[in-house]
Amino acid sequence: MNGAQSLIQTLVNCDVDVCFGNPGTSEMHFVAALDSAPTMRSVLCLFEGVVTGAADGYGRVAGKPAATLLHLGPGLANGLANLHNARRANTPIVNIVGDHATYHLQYDALLTSDIVGFARPVSSWIHESKSAKTVAADTARAVQAARSAPGGVSTLILPADTAWEEAERPALPLLDRGPEPASPAAVEAAAMLLRNGKRTALILRGNALHGAGLEAAGRVQAASGARLLCDTFAPHTELGAGRVPVERIPYFAEQIVAFLEGTEQILLVGSKPPVSFFAYPGTSSWCTPEGCHLSYLSHPHEDACGALAALADALGTPEQAARRVPLQLPDMPTGNLTPSAIARVMSNLTPENAIFADESATSGGALLSTMATARPHTHLPLTGGSIGDGLPVAIGAAIAAPDRKVVCPHGDGGAAYTMQALWTMARENLDITVVIYANRSYAILNIELQRVGVQEASQKALSMLDLRNPEMNWVKIAQGMGVEASRATTAEEFADLYRSAMRQRGPRLIEAMI
Amino acid sequence: MNGAQSLIQTLVNCDVDVCFGNPGTSEMHFVAALDSAPTMRSVLCLFEGVVTGAADGYGRVAGKPAATLLHLGPGLANGLANLHNARRANTPIVNIVGDHATYHLQYDALLTSDIVGFARPVSSWIHESKSAKTVAADTARAVQAARSAPGGVSTLILPADTAWEEAERPALPLLDRGPEPASPAAVEAAAMLLRNGKRTALILRGNALHGAGLEAAGRVQAASGARLLCDTFAPHTELGAGRVPVERIPYFAEQIVAFLEGTEQILLVGSKPPVSFFAYPGTSSWCTPEGCHLSYLSHPHEDACGALAALADALGTPEQAARRVPLQLPDMPTGNLTPSAIARVMSNLTPENAIFADESATSGGALLSTMATARPHTHLPLTGGSIGDGLPVAIGAAIAAPDRKVVCPHGDGGAAYTMQALWTMARENLDITVVIYANRSYAILNIELQRVGVQEASQKALSMLDLRNPEMNWVKIAQGMGVEASRATTAEEFADLYRSAMRQRGPRLIEAMI
Repeated sequence: MNGAQSLIQTLVNCDVDVCFGNPGTSEMHFVAALDSAPTMRSVLCLFEGVVTGAADGYGRVAGKPAATLLHLGPGLANGLANLHNARRANTPIVNIVGDHATYHLQYDALLTSDIVGFARPVSSWIHESKSAKTVAADTARAVQAARSAPGGVSTLILPADTAWEEAERPALPLLDRGPEPASPAAVEAAAMLLRNGKRTALILRGNALHGAGLEAAGRVQAASGARLLCDTFAPHTELGAGRVPVERIPYFAEQIVAFLEGTEQILLVGSKPPVSFFAYPGTSSWCTPEGCHLSYLSHPHEDACGALAALADALGTPEQAARRVPLQLPDMPTGNLTPSAIARVMSNLTPENAIFADESATSGGALLSTMATARPHTHLPLTGGSIGDGLPVAIGAAIAAPDRKVVCPHGDGGAAYTMQALWTMARENLDITVVIYANRSYAILNIELQRVGVQEASQKALSMLDLRNPEMNWVKIAQGMGVEASRATTAEEFADLYRSAMRQRGPRLIEAMI
Repeated sequence: MNGAQSLIQTLVNCDVDVCFGNPGTSEMHFVAALDSAPTMRSVLCLFEGVVTGAADGYGRVAGKPAATLLHLGPGLANGLANLHNARRANTPIVNIVGDHATYHLQYDALLTSDIVGFARPVSSWIHESKSAKTVAADTARAVQAARSAPGGVSTLILPADTAWEEAERPALPLLDRGPEPASPAAVEAAAMLLRNGKRTALILRGNALHGAGLEAAGRVQAASGARLLCDTFAPHTELGAGRVPVERIPYFAEQIVAFLEGTEQILLVGSKPPVSFFAYPGTSSWCTPEGCHLSYLSHPHEDACGALAALADALGTPEQAARRVPLQLPDMPTGNLTPSAIARVMSNLTPENAIFADESATSGGALLSTMATARPHTHLPLTGGSIGDGLPVAIGAAIAAPDRKVVCPHGDGGAAYTMQALWTMARENLDITVVIYANRSYAILNIELQRVGVQEASQKALSMLDLRNPEMNWVKIAQGMGVEASRATTAEEFADLYRSAMRQRGPRLIEAMI
């Protein structure tokens, strides 16, 4: 058994059985070792941003890490932006980066770079293996670290000789640390706050937003009347009919301020105080109302679900049952194809239990509000603001949940970042419907240009936000990468194409000409 | 005048008048300020790897830096792999990265990251502006640092408030440091070595490989009989008929060892001793023959051209004139389309003074040997081993030299990394002919898999190197991004398409089915 085989077998022992990769020479032993573990699924991606974004989507849906396989520093570098998004989502990922053989580094060959330096800004744990004999143990620690609450990116650097030299045996999994229980004192203090009659909001994150955590939050709400809120870009929410309703904090600072006006107490449940996404001249970045009392029910590394359940118990039996979102489907649209029309079609036709890998950006406002009362579904947004995560996240979600339909509504500007993802969707025949909002613009920047105080932008400046010259043809791009694709120019055409996509399995792309 | 205007005007004052960018909200004042400097050309790219690769190609051809414009840490992260290539090419680049306003960083909003951390592995100079008042001076220093011999990546981080706050005036250029003169003692020592009768090789780099430097090297060769060599991936060479011939060091370690066998003295001219690109089990990475004497004529930060001229003078008038490459064009091919057939067509039909942005990878051996005696041309290879640089480098080269035909022979695996570059080629109507070697494989890895000692690779392993499922259609991908494209399946078809591309201006893609 060589080091690479000990690594892969240890991953499987630790319940990591999917690897997204784009290997190179220094990873050839890892590739060869894939055979030694038949249950390890290996997914080839044409670009490392797809690798890391797919691992992000997988981890958010599966609740456990996938592995990546990246080629030296530059391969890692190409994956960093979506690792940034994963870091902001607290997604568990075992990020494996090949390196030159230990004895080769001294020569500073052309592909040599500071891999630890590249990894540091996105990783919660980093280790370089120095011997084939320790690779298995290093791998078990990497998995443990990735799974440590609230989840993070473990970067394990694997020099080529530690892959090809002789190892002893694979390692067994280490203790799963899991989240720590929240402090009973914090629960007691929160219960007192919720009884003092002041206007209170809970900002939920992590496991407070799905399953038992969301149910417990619903009981707290029913017993206290407090508002349930979540971040604009909460990494993983369960939405739609039958679920406990949670209000999403809006995007722009002045909207957040208006949204929170009158709030006297904020209770943070694994979350942070709301701040502006960007700074603007003359606008405050801090959005908590003046005089509002801020406190923590639980910290990100603590068990929000347990804390909410304990808090609900402390508050006693509510007079009424938890609120539930009613099923409300809008009328089907006709005529012009607009973001609102797309939202109405999706709301009507998307089957229960779908997963939305949502990077709809400026076109997504209507989608979120319309889907709020659609059939129950999972929502995975762009968590770190680095565009080009949606298509890869859809890949990871589809592999984590092969029996669920994945829908990927995506802005065209962001989709151009990682368009190579389409190829992997075709290769793996993943059940993903991609909807490209073809507004041929970095539309958000036309808004932001004015918000930052630019009064009269010239043609030269505006052309830097404009994607009309030339117009991308997403049907051809998708077909060029093996994905069936069509264009919709009216609401009716879009409805026909979307209905057909929902009824079939496999990848489809619809270019929506809005 | 705000900080952004002071920055752009300072760039123009310092002779930096091209900016490749993909801006976001924090860069909107920079975008708006583009109007204040009409001579600044601003080129939009759909992905940051295209931005930085284009700046690499521009700098290598223009001999002066372009600026980039990147959006915060993740935007920089997407550009790091091609900055790695640029670092290995010693390309001067002024790498401008927007950041949150200084007062916003404390809130750790979602797009916040360790920008300095991301920048460090690729930058020779890094600075964060802290006030609009210093932005102009900081910019002048960034340009000076990028231009300091042998050239490097200067990263200037520009918080949004330093762009929008009031500045005073643009700065004037700082002293151009240029390369230092080589040590007279080193020149004298080299002259003594070249007279001692031992078999000597000069390994040339930087300005020793073009113009007056190459001419001086030719005089040294004629006077001494020494071999003239260059790195496998020398960043910028002038090749073809009429030029002084320089032998290229081969790629694999055992080839290098055979190539250098019998060499008793190596004189390094801005270069490093040759080493293996990768390590292999049981193979030495160090390729200098045992007992061979290594010494430096000039270091990378010194003037190789001046050192060679002084050395030629010290050696006295040679008995014969410097060697010249003869013009030898091969027969035009017929029948099967192979890398060799492509090379023969290109050698016959490429006009004088073309620029090759060459990422032909495993298909490129025939190209280099055949083009060696073709019409004079410039050769820009992949310098850092991080694939996906060729298409962007072609963009930068075409903008630096708008009157020269740019040819971009590219492997399909690498081209998939930065396919978004095609869009910018169409947008700017650049005179680039892209030739995709469509072998539907990471072909190098099939070679490397055996070289690293993997004996029997399974289908599962081999599938990770294979791009046939699905097959990419580069004609559709290119058309989807606005570039005219055709497919060639025979040598005759390829010749027809290539001839037509050489006669027209503007971007063209030929998918060569090899």
